[in-house]
Amino acid sequence: MQNFVYYAPTEVVFGKGTEEKTGEEVKKWGGSRVLIVYGGGSVKRSGLLQKVEASLDKEGIAWMEYGGVKPNPRLAFAQEGVRKALEFQADFLLAAGGGSAIDTAKAIAHGTANPKMDLWDIWTGKEALTKSLPVGVVLTISAAGSEMSDSAVLTNEAIGRKQGLSTPYNRVKFAVMNPELTATLPKYQVACGVVDILMHTLDRYFTHTKGNEMTDEIAEALLRIVVRNGRRAYEDPADYAAASELMWCGSLSHNGLTGLGAETDFAPHKLGHELSAKYDVAHGASLSAVWEAWARYVCPEEPERFARYAKKVWGIEEQDPVKAADAGIQATVEYFRSLDMPVSLGDLEGGVKTEEELLDMAKRCTGNDTFTVAKFKVLHQNDVLEIYRRANHR
Amino acid sequence: MQNFVYYAPTEVVFGKGTEEKTGEEVKKWGGSRVLIVYGGGSVKRSGLLQKVEASLDKEGIAWMEYGGVKPNPRLAFAQEGVRKALEFQADFLLAAGGGSAIDTAKAIAHGTANPKMDLWDIWTGKEALTKSLPVGVVLTISAAGSEMSDSAVLTNEAIGRKQGLSTPYNRVKFAVMNPELTATLPKYQVACGVVDILMHTLDRYFTHTKGNEMTDEIAEALLRIVVRNGRRAYEDPADYAAASELMWCGSLSHNGLTGLGAETDFAPHKLGHELSAKYDVAHGASLSAVWEAWARYVCPEEPERFARYAKKVWGIEEQDPVKAADAGIQATVEYFRSLDMPVSLGDLEGGVKTEEELLDMAKRCTGNDTFTVAKFKVLHQNDVLEIYRRANHR
Repeated sequence: MQNFVYYAPTEVVFGKGTEEKTGEEVKKWGGSRVLIVYGGGSVKRSGLLQKVEASLDKEGIAWMEYGGVKPNPRLAFAQEGVRKALEFQADFLLAAGGGSAIDTAKAIAHGTANPKMDLWDIWTGKEALTKSLPVGVVLTISAAGSEMSDSAVLTNEAIGRKQGLSTPYNRVKFAVMNPELTATLPKYQVACGVVDILMHTLDRYFTHTKGNEMTDEIAEALLRIVVRNGRRAYEDPADYAAASELMWCGSLSHNGLTGLGAETDFAPHKLGHELSAKYDVAHGASLSAVWEAWARYVCPEEPERFARYAKKVWGIEEQDPVKAADAGIQATVEYFRSLDMPVSLGDLEGGVKTEEELLDMAKRCTGNDTFTVAKFKVLHQNDVLEIYRRANHR
Repeated sequence: MQNFVYYAPTEVVFGKGTEEKTGEEVKKWGGSRVLIVYGGGSVKRSGLLQKVEASLDKEGIAWMEYGGVKPNPRLAFAQEGVRKALEFQADFLLAAGGGSAIDTAKAIAHGTANPKMDLWDIWTGKEALTKSLPVGVVLTISAAGSEMSDSAVLTNEAIGRKQGLSTPYNRVKFAVMNPELTATLPKYQVACGVVDILMHTLDRYFTHTKGNEMTDEIAEALLRIVVRNGRRAYEDPADYAAASELMWCGSLSHNGLTGLGAETDFAPHKLGHELSAKYDVAHGASLSAVWEAWARYVCPEEPERFARYAKKVWGIEEQDPVKAADAGIQATVEYFRSLDMPVSLGDLEGGVKTEEELLDMAKRCTGNDTFTVAKFKVLHQNDVLEIYRRANHR
């Protein structure tokens, strides 16, 4: 094992009916006035929000709702949330939803604890956090892994920029995770989640760092399990066994464990973020749309790593590393297709992009070629542009 | 996945030279007056203690030494530590060592924060903890996993009882883990550690609970890696690659991850504890000495589980589950032998025991048959006695 720091303090309360423990958990972690952050009306229609609120009432905890988070959550919405939280004198943030609700709750927690800081300055690193409010989560979709991760992503819609922030202050206190809550999700959302979960580990797995045996084997185990159960959950989102494996893997995939000791890459995430910022593409779809082009572009840097992936995750026994690597990439792309996920830019709404659009994204991705992206192959603006070009077909 | 709670908040600072960060870590976690708990003189002779103290000095942190922890750590020594800590007005406990030093530091932390409680009453559950002092760890041996676990074991020498306590208050704040520190360990201690690490996962793995795919695959990956690297570390304790995998696996094996969602067994640990309490046998040796007899006794409850273990960990392809299970048990025993670890009571110092001695341990293990042990096969006093008898050969 190479050197690393691992810190994933979130208490996970996992299983059927656990949303009813939300009140106890908030109390345990010191909350008495809670701003509840959620997205659309689905948490209301399903009755989840009422259950959560009843469990807060039971513990004598005051709460206020703040709904309306959108996918690829917006800076302005979080800023408005900070105002609400300050007004309500909230001392705890509770997200009921998926990555967008959780990331928004994290942002509101930082902003509320630091009312003099500009939220976007925190996100771009101009302001350094030294405190935040505690956050809890009731998870409703297996995907982003934000419930155990140290990261959160906001989109500054004014400048069309999607930006991630990694900090220990992004670790939430508890996550209540009931896989039953994902049983009624649309198939498309299940598929987007599966891609996102896979990609959190894939973006760590493709590294030149050697000698992290336990990290590699955990990563490979997780990828195999997500592939297998992702297929089953896509066929039937109400398959509890599959949904529960996906949910736990979703958290482990992004809590740090599957990349410890290795230099991590995250190129597909960065390339996908530009697609999401520009076209509001769902996060999972943005990842599968660029992955093949990225993988084939960087694979020559170390085909042996892709060959190991092919063998351990897809059972491909081909001995020649270049052929094995190719087969592993192909298997991944076919898997994405089997979930009806886009595997090119042309598969996205609006179809193939113009050269100008690609160049615009490549520039944003590299700050007009002032910084590079990723590590497995360091990508300059021209590399990013070339990957977008190769992904830009039907 | 079945329902579970997972909470492993310890910050792990892993790798070469990390002991020099001890002062920063103590400061970060709020310590200003530190009682340093350690065992024999090896941490002094190696210069580790001086390095750690220098790093505390650098941060302006006051400290006092409390050395002399013995393997199978004693209640009376911890009680004396509580007196020292109160006198020194310690607000932080720092263990420099392995499981015995860490468990003692945990005990002193509980006792110091609750000076009116009797420490043994805490250990036996008569008194419930609602607070403790923070604890940090500088790890010097890969074995007990106490650096990330929620448990600690004390021996009440007055009544010859070894007793574990599991509580979230046993989770330490940080663990500094430099695998270089294990390079000079005697081979026997390396071997005892390997057995202990394997057993923390094996004692969780043998369960009838189904449907925890991610838990099972992490457990199997860990067992494979510990077997492989345990052999290498035993040959050469200075093999950093092997030592570092062992150290990280040691923590993961006992932080909960390898048993999530399953009913856990822990029979070998309980049977071994009686051996340690009565004969002061090293913990690892007490486990390997009883494991085969236990495994063969309980295997008929579900040979398929042992067969899966044989296949996934030892690569045994035998199709008949009973034969495969047998081969897996045999492979484990041969592995213990290859590390020169005892595989029977007769292999221990003092040789085979009398029937009276066995009965005495069986009685202690089951409170004179007033409670049972384990879950894979529920063991009454007669079962425990029978297992000891079967283990009682040369």
